Amino acid sequence: MTYCAGMLVEEGLVMMADTRTNAGVDDISVYRKLHILAKGDDRLIVAASSGNLSITQLVVSRLEEGLAPLIDDDEPRTLARVPSMFQAAELVGEAVASARKDVGRALSAQNIDAGISLLLGGRVGKGKLRLYLIYSAGNFIECHSDAPFLQIGETKYGKPILDRALQWNTPLDEAVKVGLISFDSTMRSNLAVGRPLDVIVIPGDLKKPVIERRIGTDDPYFDDLSARWSMLLGESRAIIPTPPFMT
Amino acid sequence: MTYCAGMLVEEGLVMMADTRTNAGVDDISVYRKLHILAKGDDRLIVAASSGNLSITQLVVSRLEEGLAPLIDDDEPRTLARVPSMFQAAELVGEAVASARKDVGRALSAQNIDAGISLLLGGRVGKGKLRLYLIYSAGNFIECHSDAPFLQIGETKYGKPILDRALQWNTPLDEAVKVGLISFDSTMRSNLAVGRPLDVIVIPGDLKKPVIERRIGTDDPYFDDLSARWSMLLGESRAIIPTPPFMT
Repeated sequence: MTYCAGMLVEEGLVMMADTRTNAGVDDISVYRKLHILAKGDDRLIVAASSGNLSITQLVVSRLEEGLAPLIDDDEPRTLARVPSMFQAAELVGEAVASARKDVGRALSAQNIDAGISLLLGGRVGKGKLRLYLIYSAGNFIECHSDAPFLQIGETKYGKPILDRALQWNTPLDEAVKVGLISFDSTMRSNLAVGRPLDVIVIPGDLKKPVIERRIGTDDPYFDDLSARWSMLLGESRAIIPTPPFMT
Repeated sequence: MTYCAGMLVEEGLVMMADTRTNAGVDDISVYRKLHILAKGDDRLIVAASSGNLSITQLVVSRLEEGLAPLIDDDEPRTLARVPSMFQAAELVGEAVASARKDVGRALSAQNIDAGISLLLGGRVGKGKLRLYLIYSAGNFIECHSDAPFLQIGETKYGKPILDRALQWNTPLDEAVKVGLISFDSTMRSNLAVGRPLDVIVIPGDLKKPVIERRIGTDDPYFDDLSARWSMLLGESRAIIPTPPFMT
């Protein structure tokens, strides 16, 4: 299992992913699911992945080498050269669809799910920060300010806090905090989602630095956040009156 | 969709169910999903149901009329006469399996899911309060004190609060409150779960009254609980420090 969340607020973009993969509960490993697909003076394109690990790695490798050019003489099509985030999403969608087509038949013959989904976020050139969810067929949706987050993988446990707490005008540091609470809730209820967590924060303001962070299994801030959140939830419950029909 | 939760704590049993059913988003109705299957001086057996509505109704009707006797001369087998909650669970499991077998083939030919699951709770005779989850094949598991709750339907949104807040020694009125918070979280994130909610509280102490309650769409206590919980979650978030790597 996997949990990844992308949060696109006025001040910037936050992408988070856990690192736990499992092929059965007796085969659990740490794999990075948050990938920097393109980095340069004019672009930063990041993807978080959920689903079949071999298909994910195939997609990432093909994108690194570049998809076959549309005209014979052209260079391979890479994310280093797409002119917009929309075209980045199209290229990644094409890579997802083709990887699934190439390997999916062999996998489905063995009843193995070849589905993957990706969160794709970042900026290209002078374009705004954008965030997409790319489905396993290669189609995609874009995140908009009415609901400024997208999730893939084990999404439900951590969705209530995002639904309540995240708005377009939520400050970037608060969005990171809310995202970490969302991961804490998910990890408490599903063992298949676990630390380390990978976090990338891309401020909308180009003068501010991009922050990359791995939150390990012994991260003191996360431990403190988790303990405090539990305690505060308990205190909050105590404040709510007893149902009148129970008194 | 549906959400039902059963909570079995030291002081008693709480069963809750929403009432929203939908055959597509353009056909939404209110149907009771919390059923009293047997009620008498020596027993109270309650079920909450999730899944195909026609199969659920078939199961409930067959249980009311009684399953065919095992020996020709006997009376139909009903929950009014089972000698224990375990045998109640077996009888209900048999009704679920047979209903699914009888109707399931016709439904699966139309790609309609014939699966249902049930929470079955209550007491028979001098036996303890018991709570079971009955799967669509008719097999079942029993709730035990290490994790004193069972859920069916849209379970994930409302599970984190139960995981954190509910223990065997949680007082009965607090268990009701926690259950309502779990429903509030679920209804915020999934439109297919909605009020009215039906609640039955069966105290372990036979001298205390059984409480039955329908919580309507304008229930002032629930509205207050929902508003307070939102506010308290917001205040709790504000107390948690900003991630150190964001300052």
